[in-house]
This record gives sequence, C-alpha cells and structure tokens, in this order.
Amino acid sequence: MLSKARVKFIKSLQLKKYRKQEQCFVVEGAKSVLEVLSSDYRVTMVVATPRFLQTHERALQQFQGELIETSERTLEELSEFKTNSMALAVVELKEYQEVTVHEGDYALVLDDIQDPGNLGTIIRTADWYGIETIIASERTADVYNGKVIQASMGSFTRVKMLYTHLATYLKGTSLPIMGAFLDGEDVHHFSFPSGGYVVIGNEGSGISPGVANCIKHRITINRFGFAESLNAGIATAVICDNMRRSLLKG
Amino acid sequence: MLSKARVKFIKSLQLKKYRKQEQCFVVEGAKSVLEVLSSDYRVTMVVATPRFLQTHERALQQFQGELIETSERTLEELSEFKTNSMALAVVELKEYQEVTVHEGDYALVLDDIQDPGNLGTIIRTADWYGIETIIASERTADVYNGKVIQASMGSFTRVKMLYTHLATYLKGTSLPIMGAFLDGEDVHHFSFPSGGYVVIGNEGSGISPGVANCIKHRITINRFGFAESLNAGIATAVICDNMRRSLLKG
Repeated sequence: MLSKARVKFIKSLQLKKYRKQEQCFVVEGAKSVLEVLSSDYRVTMVVATPRFLQTHERALQQFQGELIETSERTLEELSEFKTNSMALAVVELKEYQEVTVHEGDYALVLDDIQDPGNLGTIIRTADWYGIETIIASERTADVYNGKVIQASMGSFTRVKMLYTHLATYLKGTSLPIMGAFLDGEDVHHFSFPSGGYVVIGNEGSGISPGVANCIKHRITINRFGFAESLNAGIATAVICDNMRRSLLKG
Repeated sequence: MLSKARVKFIKSLQLKKYRKQEQCFVVEGAKSVLEVLSSDYRVTMVVATPRFLQTHERALQQFQGELIETSERTLEELSEFKTNSMALAVVELKEYQEVTVHEGDYALVLDDIQDPGNLGTIIRTADWYGIETIIASERTADVYNGKVIQASMGSFTRVKMLYTHLATYLKGTSLPIMGAFLDGEDVHHFSFPSGGYVVIGNEGSGISPGVANCIKHRITINRFGFAESLNAGIATAVICDNMRRSLLKG
C-alpha cells in the first residue's frame, strides 16, 4: 500500500531542494527503472503495477529495498510524466567531489547548459560515443531532475557528472582543451588529440569569457545553410562524431 | 488595446484544430518575431511591448497588419511560453500540396517524429546543413505547434514541410533514398550520392516497415559506448554532417 507520506515524499523529489535534503531522486518508466536496477546505483524503493512486477520478476529478485504494488492510475498520479504507467524507483543520488580523466580519455565540459532536455540528450550522446565523464558548471541543470533522467534514457547510470567551477578546474588540468565556437577551425579538418576536454557553451550565450580563456583549440561546425547556430546537444554530437572519426583514422 | 476576443483568438491557436480552422499560427519571442517579419510569411498581427516597438521601429516600418501595444505582463499571460515578454506575431500558415526536390538536393523524410522539440531541432539542423525540404508522415508533429516554432529558432521560415503518406511519396521518386538504422553501413564510410532523401524514424520504434521497404541505402552511426540508441534530432545532425563532408570530398 502506498501511504500518503510516501506519496508526499516521492512527489517532493521533483524539486532539487528535497533531492538534496533526502539525497534521493526518482526514475520513471519501465525501461529506465530496469536500467537503474541493474546499475551500481542504490535503489531504495520501487513502486510498480502488478503487470510490471509479473513481467520483470527476475530483475527484481536481487532487489533489497521496499517494493510497493500499486494501480496504473495511482502511478500516473504519482509521476512527473504522464507517459509513466508501469514503474518508478527512488534511488540514492551520487555527488562526485572529484573525477579522474585519464590521458587518452575524453570528457565533456558543460558551461551552463540550462535546459534539462538538452542535458539529458548530451548525457545519452556522451554514452553513445564512449565518454564517461562530464564536468559541469554549477549553473548547469541538475542531472537528477526528472526531465534530465528521462531524456538520458538510462545513460545517466554510466556517465559521471561533476559540478564545479569550470575555470578553476580547467586551469588544474594538463590535457588538451577544445571548445565549440562559431569562429574556430573546421571540425572536419581538425586533428583531435588522443584525449582531452570538449567544452560546450550555454544555449543562448555560448562559452563564458572566463572559460573561453582556458581553451586552446577553438573548433567550429561548418555551416552550409542559414540557421544562426545549432542546438547545444546537436553541436555536442557532431563534435563527438568527428572526434571518434579523427581518432580512428589515427 | 487587446480586446477579449483577440486574447481568446490568439490563445485558441495553441491548438492544431484552431490553427487549421483559422489558417494561422503564433510566433513568440523577439528574435523569432523579427525573423518571421523579414521572411516571406504573411504576418497579420503583432502584439508587442513599448520596448519592443521602440527598439525595432525599422523592422516594423513595412508591416501592413494590425499592431497592438501591450504591457509585458499581458504579453506573458497571452503567451504559451513564460519566457516571452517582448512580442508575438499571428502569421498565416503555409500548407504545401507538393514540393520539388531537384537532383543534387537533399531532403529529410521524417517517419512519425512526434516530439515537438525534436521536430523543431531537426528543422533548425536541416537549415544549418542547407537542406530546404522536409517530407513528413501525417503523424509527425505539426510544424506550427508553438514548441516546434520555438525550437526551430526561426528556421521554420526557410524550410518547407510537406505532410504526406511517405511510402506513396517515396515510390514516386527516382532519387536515392537513405535511412538511419542500427544495422546499416557505417556512416563514416558511406559514400553519399550527390542528392536524395534521408529517412529518420520515430523516437521509439524507428522507421516503419512500409517506409523501410522503400530505402535502398541503410546507414548506421557508429557506436563507441553503451547507449542503446541516439535521439532522433542527434541522429539527423550526425548524418547531415557526414553527408556534407562526403560531398565536399567528392
């Protein structure tokens, strides 16, 4: 049975303030719940319909937390997204104080990516291109926001996010730092180093001056038409694709 | 003065049913309003704050339609997006019955792209990569939906959209047809023809069987990590970027 207190607790986690306080976040939807159950995140509660519980009995066998059965309707009422009618999980969040980017690895650096959908898509794209670490400015959207989790399609379980002061962080690293600008070297001709950081700027204002100062290689996505700029997630993907192609060519 | 009837009319255009009926749609935000004013769309009404009218006097000099001055607050109440506090425009929509894709041109084909944000981003990306035509299935999101207009960042003024039955359309064309699949030829090695169609599938279920049957070249974006798939807008951009690179190389 889903008590009123549980409902209130789960709904409160839609706000960052309560996620911080409780050190928990919510994962919605059958696919993402299954993905987080098989990840190294600690799941403390699963709320699911009889259909979900039946279909995924095996996935839940090892689960040690609280398991609550409920109707589709209650689940929909409980959920941030109306598309969720199968399951949700309450999960302990992870706050990294530091991450290590090894030589030969790539990391993304996000300078105030504020749209949760963009951030989720960037996490999913990083995961596709084998990038395991994202360094984000403190004003970047919260990775544990429901919209970010949803757009990341489970990739948040595989990509570490460190929130920090970017200029300070970048000054402390010796790996190459690249950034996406409108006036840099053509990404089709840029010879990517074996590892390093790729900085992506804010949706409206681009990379901030303090961060831009740390960037050695300014790269640009070649334009063939008339749009003024590209969406931040799109720019990230095109750069990652060119980076992988450049490294394969070696 | 903004009459109650005007408010009701403008708000009604948030629904496709009324956009169809009135053959009008709404463009919100200073930048997009300026862009549509300088395009070949016919703007019938501009509702704007004194600040907008003062700053953009010149852009409005040629404007023949109804010009209504209002406060920031009223404008915000009138708008679909809370970020709009400058201007909105009511614009006559365009419904194409046919479009011509010339040899040597590329067009995108969207097989049920249902998320408005994705569609807007795809239009913006097409515009960046010099693609002027999109052929969309009837279940693809409506280009004149407010979220699509917003995400397209003005690019909707430069990209023609034809809604039609895809399989029928594709059977009637002689240009090469490519499609994004998870099991095709690596896009890094694919030699793009000088023009043709690139088919992008639905966010969840990919390209439908009837449309897949029309596709001669199956292409795939190489994966280097663990995400199961890419967002539809991201996949579009990576393919367009590889297409342009392939054509430049000749």
